[in-house]
Amino acid sequence: MLPQLTILAPGLLGASVARAARARGVAARIVIWSRRAETRLALAGQPWCDAVAETPEAAARDATLVLIASPVDQIVPLVRQISSTLPAGALVTDVGSVKGEIARLGAVALGQHAHFVGAHPMAGSEKTGWEHSTADLFERRVCFVAPLPATPPGATAAVVKFWHDLGAEVVTVDPDRHDEIVAHISHLPQVLASTLCAFLAQRDPSWRNFAGGGLRDTTRIAASDPQLWRTILEQNRDEVLRALRHYQDELHTFQSALSNRDYTAVIAHLERGQAYRRQFRPAP
Amino acid sequence: MLPQLTILAPGLLGASVARAARARGVAARIVIWSRRAETRLALAGQPWCDAVAETPEAAARDATLVLIASPVDQIVPLVRQISSTLPAGALVTDVGSVKGEIARLGAVALGQHAHFVGAHPMAGSEKTGWEHSTADLFERRVCFVAPLPATPPGATAAVVKFWHDLGAEVVTVDPDRHDEIVAHISHLPQVLASTLCAFLAQRDPSWRNFAGGGLRDTTRIAASDPQLWRTILEQNRDEVLRALRHYQDELHTFQSALSNRDYTAVIAHLERGQAYRRQFRPAP
Repeated sequence: MLPQLTILAPGLLGASVARAARARGVAARIVIWSRRAETRLALAGQPWCDAVAETPEAAARDATLVLIASPVDQIVPLVRQISSTLPAGALVTDVGSVKGEIARLGAVALGQHAHFVGAHPMAGSEKTGWEHSTADLFERRVCFVAPLPATPPGATAAVVKFWHDLGAEVVTVDPDRHDEIVAHISHLPQVLASTLCAFLAQRDPSWRNFAGGGLRDTTRIAASDPQLWRTILEQNRDEVLRALRHYQDELHTFQSALSNRDYTAVIAHLERGQAYRRQFRPAP
Repeated sequence: MLPQLTILAPGLLGASVARAARARGVAARIVIWSRRAETRLALAGQPWCDAVAETPEAAARDATLVLIASPVDQIVPLVRQISSTLPAGALVTDVGSVKGEIARLGAVALGQHAHFVGAHPMAGSEKTGWEHSTADLFERRVCFVAPLPATPPGATAAVVKFWHDLGAEVVTVDPDRHDEIVAHISHLPQVLASTLCAFLAQRDPSWRNFAGGGLRDTTRIAASDPQLWRTILEQNRDEVLRALRHYQDELHTFQSALSNRDYTAVIAHLERGQAYRRQFRPAP
């Protein structure tokens, strides 16, 4: 059991970590800092919050492990802010959807004093805010842990254990490789869903009242927070643009097949998609 | 109550109509024809099937209303096949995802003798086959009913009532307008989901093991039957190509914004998508 888990800037994911840590006995003491005074007040009354701190530095002072749950553009600034107050040997992890730059800058910010081992749980929702958090959010969900080659193996192992103890299936991966993967399996789907909705909004918006399950499911994530996604797309811009370019090539190939009435190619395309989708693991 | 409901070629949708009709007392007698002898045998034992017929003509002989539940390319051939055996004044409807050509050819096939009023319930699943049918599949789901300008109002009203009695929210719409709408809200999402899966299959297929809820939901319909979708895309080719072209324009605009680091435009795009998606009616 961790003597102290500190959570900075909890939203849906950060508060779910707190709930899961309490429910599973992962940490003896849970200390939380939130930027907004109103949120700090509300969190102070939660059974999964032993203390709220007024500043990130105060929250980090006695931490064994710090989880930074802020939007991706605020992770490195928060690492820098707590760096000098962290106990020697403390671990810092996060829940950011992008890992390469954050891993490198996080390691630099902590020096030899403490260790940054970034993480990215593939859990979440189009909903945001700690009010929607649940103790079972990570259960049987994949969580990437993305150490650098220079990260001490002991630090990586401890962060892997932390996420595993919260219920996640941990996958250890190089930070840049992580960014390539999620550009394809998370950021590209977000762009396609948002674009489909942005496109349909310009046609007759009343058509949404006719939506079947297909449109509902393909567009659910378009309801996600634009500001959060802007920072994710900004930080993973090169990989997202590369994935998007290749997707557009595939879409254009399909368009040509349909346009040319090449139904052998149309079927082959649909069959490749079907075969891929049918081999997904069952949903958690 | 309809004296006799005849269902030709039931799969998921056709058998769900039979179950719903029995559960809701919509028809006194339900007669079913299926192409495969094995299916006819299985259906004969169902409590929502009063008789199986060996041929479409035999099934249609005493029908008050015939529902054709076959794939879209077999609807008009089936209408032609039963035309001469249908009682005078009988109604014929269908569940096809495309309506324009089918409405016109169906009306020609029946002449003045009986009436074709096509329908398209926005219900279904990536699963197919009568074994997956349920009595509540249409409850609170939109069902398009697509009469031609020349369709007698009484025939349209009777078919509207039929779908309403099965639990659906009926929307009456011109057949060509229907095809334009579903090209956008159903066929385009299918193409995008299938293309995403076909694309990811060419990258590292193991990445699917990391799929979060976003990828799962955006790609669920890619598991649908390729043969069914080939005929839908073939029959609605022009409208699908038009919607696809405009979607690609929108995607390209987004790509340019991200490429040029125009984050004001990126946010505006995401916000338009979010606003559109958030105004969906609650799921049935």
